[in-house]
Amino acid sequence: MIPGGGLPRAGADRADRPTLAVVGATGAVGTVLLGLLSERADVWGEIRLVASPRSAGRKLTVRGEEVEVLALGEEVFDGVDVAMFDVPDEVSARWAPVAVSKGAVVVDNSGAFRMDPDVPLVVPEVNAHAARVRPRGIVSNPNCTTLSMIVAMGALHAEWGLDELVVASYQAVSGSGKRGVDTLREQLAAVVGTEVGTQPGDLRRAVGDTGPYPAPIALNVVPFAGSLAEDGWTSEELKVRNESRKILGLPRLRVTATCVRVPVITTHSLSVHARFENEVSVEKAHEILANAPGVVVCDDPAAGEFPTPADAVGTDPTWVGRVRRSLDDPRALELFVCGDNLRKGAALNTAQIGELIAAELTANRA
Amino acid sequence: MIPGGGLPRAGADRADRPTLAVVGATGAVGTVLLGLLSERADVWGEIRLVASPRSAGRKLTVRGEEVEVLALGEEVFDGVDVAMFDVPDEVSARWAPVAVSKGAVVVDNSGAFRMDPDVPLVVPEVNAHAARVRPRGIVSNPNCTTLSMIVAMGALHAEWGLDELVVASYQAVSGSGKRGVDTLREQLAAVVGTEVGTQPGDLRRAVGDTGPYPAPIALNVVPFAGSLAEDGWTSEELKVRNESRKILGLPRLRVTATCVRVPVITTHSLSVHARFENEVSVEKAHEILANAPGVVVCDDPAAGEFPTPADAVGTDPTWVGRVRRSLDDPRALELFVCGDNLRKGAALNTAQIGELIAAELTANRA
Repeated sequence: MIPGGGLPRAGADRADRPTLAVVGATGAVGTVLLGLLSERADVWGEIRLVASPRSAGRKLTVRGEEVEVLALGEEVFDGVDVAMFDVPDEVSARWAPVAVSKGAVVVDNSGAFRMDPDVPLVVPEVNAHAARVRPRGIVSNPNCTTLSMIVAMGALHAEWGLDELVVASYQAVSGSGKRGVDTLREQLAAVVGTEVGTQPGDLRRAVGDTGPYPAPIALNVVPFAGSLAEDGWTSEELKVRNESRKILGLPRLRVTATCVRVPVITTHSLSVHARFENEVSVEKAHEILANAPGVVVCDDPAAGEFPTPADAVGTDPTWVGRVRRSLDDPRALELFVCGDNLRKGAALNTAQIGELIAAELTANRA
Repeated sequence: MIPGGGLPRAGADRADRPTLAVVGATGAVGTVLLGLLSERADVWGEIRLVASPRSAGRKLTVRGEEVEVLALGEEVFDGVDVAMFDVPDEVSARWAPVAVSKGAVVVDNSGAFRMDPDVPLVVPEVNAHAARVRPRGIVSNPNCTTLSMIVAMGALHAEWGLDELVVASYQAVSGSGKRGVDTLREQLAAVVGTEVGTQPGDLRRAVGDTGPYPAPIALNVVPFAGSLAEDGWTSEELKVRNESRKILGLPRLRVTATCVRVPVITTHSLSVHARFENEVSVEKAHEILANAPGVVVCDDPAAGEFPTPADAVGTDPTWVGRVRRSLDDPRALELFVCGDNLRKGAALNTAQIGELIAAELTANRA
C-alpha cells in the first residue's frame, strides 16, 4: 500500500500470487468473469486472457488494466497456476488436458468433464471439500440450471435430507449465448405494435428465423432446451438430474426436470417441488435459507415480494421465495428460485472455485 | 333447407330450439364465445346478448347476424332456457340465481359457484354425466389453468388411476383480460430496441406501470397469479388443486401447483408431473391421448414437434407433448401441455356444457 492512502499500486503484491489464465475471455460468460475478477477481492498475480485466434490482439479491461488477448495455444499455459475455461465442450475437451500437462489446475465451465468420476463437480457453498481431490487436475463447474437452485437445495438437504426433486424451469435466452439474446430482441422488434400472438401460426410467420431455438421465443415458451437424449429427455433435463446427484453426493436421488426456454434475457427461474426424508416447515425453511451463504430469501407475497428475473439479474445470490409446504405431504416444500445464469450460473461459481484453488496453492507455497 | 341448395334460411328450425342468453357478451371470453357459437353446429333458437348497461345498444355479430346487446336486468332472462355467464365472480353471484329463478339453466364461467357441493363442475370429455345433477340450476365451468390439462389427465386417470399431480404453469396475459394484454404490449413497446433486462431493476424502471401484475411482465416471469390465500398459496394454485379433485371425483388426490405468469398473449402451458397407482409407459400414454377426444398428441422432439403457445393458440384441443416416464419412478409421467385459455380454457368448455344442456332440454321436450 502507498503510505498516506490512495489506490494500491497495481501488481504491488502480485509476484507471489498464482497466475490465472481465462480461456474464452471474449465470450458472454468470459465478459462477466472479467467483471467479477475486477470486483472481487484480488487473489491473482498475472491474469492472462486467452481466446480463439480471431480475437487475438484485442484489448480487454480487467482489474482496471488493459490486457491483450492471446490466441489459444500450448504456450499460453506456460507458468499458469489456474486456468478457467468458458468455451464449448469440444474446446475444453481438447485444451483442458493441455493446460493440466503444463502444470495448471483447470476450472472448466463446459459439459466435457462434469460427469467424469475423476473430476469433482463443485459448488463452493455445498461441496467445497470436493475441489481438493482432482485426479485429472480438472474441477468442473455445474450447468447454469442446476446452479440456479443447488445452493438453496444443499442448505435444505443438510437439515432434512433430500428425497426427491421435481423441477420445471423458466430459462433465459442468454443461456444460449449472444445468438439467443439477439434472436429474442430481433423477434420482439418484429412483433411489437402488431396483434400477433392470437391466431395459430401467426407468430411463426411474423418472426421468420427462429435462430438457435426450434420455435419462436418472443411471446412464446419453448419446452425444449439442449439436445435430444434418450427416451425423450433433453440433455439439459438429464444434466439437472445427474449434476444435482453428484454435487449433493446422493447418487440415487430421485430427480425429474422439464426445461423450458422463456422470453427473458438473463436469469433462470425454477419451480421446485422438493420432498425430504423428514417433515418440513416453512418457518424453519426460511430460517435455514436466510442463514445459507449465497442465498437471499424474498418471500412476502402480501407485500409483492417474490423473486423474479427482473430483480435477480445482475446479482450474485440465489433468490428464493414462494416457499410453501405441500398441502398433501408434510415432507414436501414448493419453492420458486431465481439465479443469474451468467453469474452464479456460470462466471461467479467459476471464480469462486478458482479462489478455492488459489487459496490452496498459496497455502501450500507458504 | 331450401331445395336446390343455398344457405339454410336463418331461423328456419329455431322455433323449437332452446333460447340462449350470453351474459358478458362484450368481454374477452364473450367475444370468443360468439365466434364459437357461429362456427359450431347450431343447437340454439334465439341467442340473446347481454352486458353491462354501458355496452347496451352495441351491435355484435353472432351466427352471421347482427344482434343488439341488452343491459343486464331481470327481464332479459324471460323465456331463456340456458344462460352462459362470462362475468366477474360478484356479477355471477348476484345474477346467476336471478336467471335460475326465471327458469334458465346457468352455465357459469366465474369462480363464484365452482366449489359449491350443489353445483357440478363440468368438463364434457371427463364428467359429462355430472351436468345432469344440478340442484341449484347452475353448472360451473372450471378455471382456465385446470382446463388446460384436465382433459388429458382424465384420459390417463381412466387407465392408470391418478395418485398425485405436481404442476408448474406458464400462464398467458389474456387470462387477466384486456388489461393484461394491453400491459404486456405496452411494456414490450417500452423495452424493444433497448438493452434493458441485464441489470438489477432496469426493467422496473423502463416499464413503469405494471398494470394488473405485481412485477413487470415483459422480459420477465411473475410467480404470482390470482390473489393471496392461506399459507402462502395463491387462489389460482388452490383452484388447480380443488377443481382437479372435484372434476376427477378424487377428493383426496394429492395436487400441488405453482402458477407463474409469462409474457405470452394467449394459451396457457403446464409442466405436469403425474404419478399413478400403476406402472405407466410412454407408448401406452401416447395411445390413450391420441384416442382421447379433445386431445392432440404433438410429441416428436427429434422432428421439432412439441406443443408451444404459438401453435396451440386459436385452436380447440389440449396439445400434449414431451411425454416421458420418470427415470426414477415407473409410475410417474412428465408431460408438457398447452391449451388456449380463452377457448377450451373458457368459452369452448362453456359452449360444450351449454350444448349438453340443450340436448337434454330438447330430448325432454320431444
